[in-house]
Amino acid sequence: MSKILCLSIMIGFWSAIASGQTIHSPDGKLSMSFGIDEGKPHYKLTYKDREVIKTSTMGLELKDQPSFLDGFQLSETEESTFDENWEPHWGQYKNIRNHYNELVITLSQESQMGRVLRIRFRLFNDGLGFRYEFPRQEGLSYFIIKEEHTEFHLAGDHKAFWIPGDYDTNEYAFTTSPLSSIPDLMEEATIDVHAQTPIQSLAVQTPLMLKSKDGLYINIHEAALIDYPAMQLNLDVQKFRLSAHLVPDAVGNKGYIQTGTHSPWRTIIVSDKATEILASTLILNLNEPTAYEDVSWIKPIKYIGVWWELFLPGRSTWAYSDATNVSLDQDYSELEPSPRHGATVENVKKHLDFAAEHGFDAVLVEGWNIGWEDWFGQWKEDVFDFVTPYPDFDVEALQEYAESKGVKLMMHHETSGSVSNYERRLDRAFEFMNDHGYNSVKSGYVGKIIPRGEHHDGQWMVNHYIHVARRAADYKIMINSHEAVRPTGLHRTFPNWLAQESARGTEFEAMGGLAPEHTTILPFTRLMGGPMDYTPGIFQTDFSYYDENSTNRVKTTLVKQLAYYVTIYSPLQMAADLPENYMRFPDAFQFIKDVAVDWDDTHHLEAEPGDFVTTARKAKGKNEWFIGSVTDENARQASINFDFLPSGNTYIATVYADGKDASWDKNPQSYTVNKFLVNATSKLKQHIAPGGGLAISIKEASKEEKKGLRKL
Amino acid sequence: MSKILCLSIMIGFWSAIASGQTIHSPDGKLSMSFGIDEGKPHYKLTYKDREVIKTSTMGLELKDQPSFLDGFQLSETEESTFDENWEPHWGQYKNIRNHYNELVITLSQESQMGRVLRIRFRLFNDGLGFRYEFPRQEGLSYFIIKEEHTEFHLAGDHKAFWIPGDYDTNEYAFTTSPLSSIPDLMEEATIDVHAQTPIQSLAVQTPLMLKSKDGLYINIHEAALIDYPAMQLNLDVQKFRLSAHLVPDAVGNKGYIQTGTHSPWRTIIVSDKATEILASTLILNLNEPTAYEDVSWIKPIKYIGVWWELFLPGRSTWAYSDATNVSLDQDYSELEPSPRHGATVENVKKHLDFAAEHGFDAVLVEGWNIGWEDWFGQWKEDVFDFVTPYPDFDVEALQEYAESKGVKLMMHHETSGSVSNYERRLDRAFEFMNDHGYNSVKSGYVGKIIPRGEHHDGQWMVNHYIHVARRAADYKIMINSHEAVRPTGLHRTFPNWLAQESARGTEFEAMGGLAPEHTTILPFTRLMGGPMDYTPGIFQTDFSYYDENSTNRVKTTLVKQLAYYVTIYSPLQMAADLPENYMRFPDAFQFIKDVAVDWDDTHHLEAEPGDFVTTARKAKGKNEWFIGSVTDENARQASINFDFLPSGNTYIATVYADGKDASWDKNPQSYTVNKFLVNATSKLKQHIAPGGGLAISIKEASKEEKKGLRKL
Repeated sequence: MSKILCLSIMIGFWSAIASGQTIHSPDGKLSMSFGIDEGKPHYKLTYKDREVIKTSTMGLELKDQPSFLDGFQLSETEESTFDENWEPHWGQYKNIRNHYNELVITLSQESQMGRVLRIRFRLFNDGLGFRYEFPRQEGLSYFIIKEEHTEFHLAGDHKAFWIPGDYDTNEYAFTTSPLSSIPDLMEEATIDVHAQTPIQSLAVQTPLMLKSKDGLYINIHEAALIDYPAMQLNLDVQKFRLSAHLVPDAVGNKGYIQTGTHSPWRTIIVSDKATEILASTLILNLNEPTAYEDVSWIKPIKYIGVWWELFLPGRSTWAYSDATNVSLDQDYSELEPSPRHGATVENVKKHLDFAAEHGFDAVLVEGWNIGWEDWFGQWKEDVFDFVTPYPDFDVEALQEYAESKGVKLMMHHETSGSVSNYERRLDRAFEFMNDHGYNSVKSGYVGKIIPRGEHHDGQWMVNHYIHVARRAADYKIMINSHEAVRPTGLHRTFPNWLAQESARGTEFEAMGGLAPEHTTILPFTRLMGGPMDYTPGIFQTDFSYYDENSTNRVKTTLVKQLAYYVTIYSPLQMAADLPENYMRFPDAFQFIKDVAVDWDDTHHLEAEPGDFVTTARKAKGKNEWFIGSVTDENARQASINFDFLPSGNTYIATVYADGKDASWDKNPQSYTVNKFLVNATSKLKQHIAPGGGLAISIKEASKEEKKGLRKL
Repeated sequence: MSKILCLSIMIGFWSAIASGQTIHSPDGKLSMSFGIDEGKPHYKLTYKDREVIKTSTMGLELKDQPSFLDGFQLSETEESTFDENWEPHWGQYKNIRNHYNELVITLSQESQMGRVLRIRFRLFNDGLGFRYEFPRQEGLSYFIIKEEHTEFHLAGDHKAFWIPGDYDTNEYAFTTSPLSSIPDLMEEATIDVHAQTPIQSLAVQTPLMLKSKDGLYINIHEAALIDYPAMQLNLDVQKFRLSAHLVPDAVGNKGYIQTGTHSPWRTIIVSDKATEILASTLILNLNEPTAYEDVSWIKPIKYIGVWWELFLPGRSTWAYSDATNVSLDQDYSELEPSPRHGATVENVKKHLDFAAEHGFDAVLVEGWNIGWEDWFGQWKEDVFDFVTPYPDFDVEALQEYAESKGVKLMMHHETSGSVSNYERRLDRAFEFMNDHGYNSVKSGYVGKIIPRGEHHDGQWMVNHYIHVARRAADYKIMINSHEAVRPTGLHRTFPNWLAQESARGTEFEAMGGLAPEHTTILPFTRLMGGPMDYTPGIFQTDFSYYDENSTNRVKTTLVKQLAYYVTIYSPLQMAADLPENYMRFPDAFQFIKDVAVDWDDTHHLEAEPGDFVTTARKAKGKNEWFIGSVTDENARQASINFDFLPSGNTYIATVYADGKDASWDKNPQSYTVNKFLVNATSKLKQHIAPGGGLAISIKEASKEEKKGLRKL
């Protein structure tokens, strides 16, 4: 239960004559001014008197109705201060402070019978959130959004960490460039991704990370995306002006609104320290507390799976057979089983044994259910039924075996994008899970959406993901969604929605690889919205190990994979490599076994987007700390100050470091594991290899254990 | 259980060199010839050597693939004869003969790697059915249909009984005109109907009834519409050529096909007698036997309802309150109840009492569940939840009361067109019905479809209706769907799909009225596909009775309303008027109480589309017969020959006739009820008033009862 300290102070509540209002962040560093010019509302934002957002217009264009863009008069303003502390059910912090100054502007359109639009601004120390509110009002109950015209007018040609605007996928590689270069780079950046729908105009996605030439870090995203399409950003490259681009539906509309609701929050996180961007809790604070009465059944998960082998050359397949043109009424006993089918009883039992031996909570199994023979690319509706196992997957036997081992099986629901089919069968699918002991599901949305014409990031799908999370909660099921719209902090409200993919993750390391800098950008972009099921832990990075003809490789050192368990926050962490590979490196594997998945506290020690990230975290309810550090393609020296440790105590730190000769491309498996004594005054300078990392675990220890260890 | 006599004789099976093939109907009257010219397949049809369909091309245009329109070679033909008798679970006949000669043409496209298309023709005595079959084949597993190009090249400028082509509604009034006049009449015929999407090109809907100048009756429709969009008909008015126009989906595609399936049957029913068109069982015969193992729980229903009062001036409302802008999370206890809300405990109990007293099986209640305050016209997704009653509708109390009376409550699921919402909640809605003793549901699809961009008659919705029927069967629930795609005989396969509306029914009598000829056209059009929940039985036809200012009236005499229970076939028949109105005319009401809803046999005695229909039916398992006769706006004399009665026996006929001075517009409630003796040699000439009808019930009777009655 969270203890809430609420200090709400109403500062003002009056009908204003003035057409301008300014509020400041609690620490005074940020200022936000709202104004109206010729009936058009606008806002601007400064940080330590430096322009973050220049005067930018606000409002919405409606379909077949007068717009919410102009003709406004200020009818009321309201200022207040809010300050509380709350405890997430799981997360990076045991306690989060939600402290902001609020300005609520009520606008009316006299020429439109007094139609009302409200804008709510919340200014935190870490940034600004604002949203449009559509109060219930006489004469306006429903409208359709043609476009939202919120602008973010930047102060200069900032460096941007961006992916192309797209209605259906966020699985692009990041491009780092000045805003002004985006037009030239867009075509190259728009690499092939399944079921992509690149935006035809110049647009990029959020969370968008920016850095000004004078060192200001700015992150633009949204919070609490509910019953509204995702926001992408048009770019006017002449004026460095971004503007909202909502994802349309099948008929080109951009949102169906019943008054008495509001838009998601538009968020602008700002600091002159990159680490403070990572430490921001603004997006979580702008989400609502959990909608569930009982959350006791929701628990972070560390898991393994029948998964990576599906990506390795010559290894396993999702499909049971090599047949094509199968249907749900296919008699599978007529098909010849493929010797490569991964989800067999034998293979799953092997994984359950491994999980039980090494303390994993669960085993994911993909390819267990009928339909995989031609599941992709046909825009087919009845691809999967989510309840019928392949002939070689004995659900009852595996349920019994898993229970005997104290390990859970993790369900897999690939929808193939056929969401109407999934919704139709959802209750039966969840009942099946309840009946067979599953309490979590990895869901997938690979492919063009059905209902046809809808997009992964449109309002209909946004509502779908939330429907699944809520309905899953009715069955006490936790969700790990892949290919869904990128997160916006909704895991605060729906904490059984443990994690999402929604970015380029480890699977792409098997398909050409991820740039070494990729995971130094993710924390500043994709992870701003919520946890990612990145599926780290690949020890065997060079694919020629599996197939001498393969030139593919995971573009990290082994140790960098360990660091991910700390730098890529998630309450759901996979040890994604094959069990046999972990057995080849048991000393390194020990870190994965030890590392926590839930935290009391988090310290961002060093960070620069595109270059490096160093993070320390304290395990939930334990005197254990874990540190991860990653770098891009360049070697560097990590500087770690252990002053986050309680003073006075000495602990044992186990340091997993790249070998001196290590590098992602030549020698990824060179590493050292050494133990040291540390306390709050310790400092460490540690070499990190090109594409490498550093992982440290810190534990309390007996005198006996400490004997002979040297101090850091 | 049906007894099946199967006499399948394979006549031929060879690789043909000839490019033409002709088959004949079992009675030799119909001939169908298939041929290929320059790689293009075509067919023609004659009846007693008169042209029904002139040489007409066949085939499909595919998206992003070579077409199935030309480049064909004949690779195989197969002829056979089939003859069986089968028994529908309910219907117009106890026993149906399925007798046809079949020709199966296999076509291949050498230039497309031997791609194969098959066309199956079945020629019955009552007409032709053919379909495209897409066999599983190497190299073609999936395709998208851009358009089907099946032609129906008519022999002349026939009189047509038509409604405008429309993707979303079939609730148009019929226009009768030569084909050549359709272009001039289309605009006028395209009256306002909710959520309509008239086809932009010149098109009409099926079932299309035609009559040639030389007296040939032709009906064009389709059978077994599954996993395919509905077919409407483009009209080339210069050449009297109709061609298929499939209903598109949200992105303009017209069908997603996985090979190993087939199109629905295209049907052409032909006769020189109008009564034989009505007697055709071709469409039923082309549907598959029932898909259910147990059908014992499926039973025809005669019902009343809290319904007609919703259409009467100043009477009841669906909505509980006059509020607007409600949501599913609305606290209804906060709203002031409207005194006009129809679905109250008191009103429903009154109906249950009435139903029990007069032998009705069920009481429909509309407006029982939350959401009606602003359910229509907003393209809103979460309109209804199908499980939450209004505060003044006590589900448990009414369940108990209904059970004590031996009457069922009929559920109502209005979807408002928000089908994604309905599917999402369907299992919960059906569980609720099971829990509360409901075994049938009237479903409604009033409004624009969600998924947005989909149409009522597109492939996605076609699959939806079938999904609902099948899923309902899992819960032993019977379906009565309104505003769904018009039927195509699927009630043979899914007999719990008891009836549909899918045309302009009685509700329109409350909104301007239906032309007196309307119900003389329905049997030749809408009813060709299956039973209609027309909701007849309106005794109080003049609305000034309710409101002196109302000039509205139902455009029939009272007796015509009785005749509908026979002329408009349905296993689901409503007595739609207010109970109090039935109590004012107890002698006429006796016919509604007596009339059967399931039949051993049916005799079409007289018929001319647009003018009159006279039908006699024998009640299922009883020596009782019922006759109905209706006329258009013109008075006429019905000629009834009772030779369908078993010879030798004498029965009592109760004749419900229009009064001599009756007419729909001046004196609709003038009628007589007289009893006579009849036997197989009896004949009756009976005056029918303008917009009037005739209803006769025939029963076995004791000598005592017969005493004093004169012979007809």
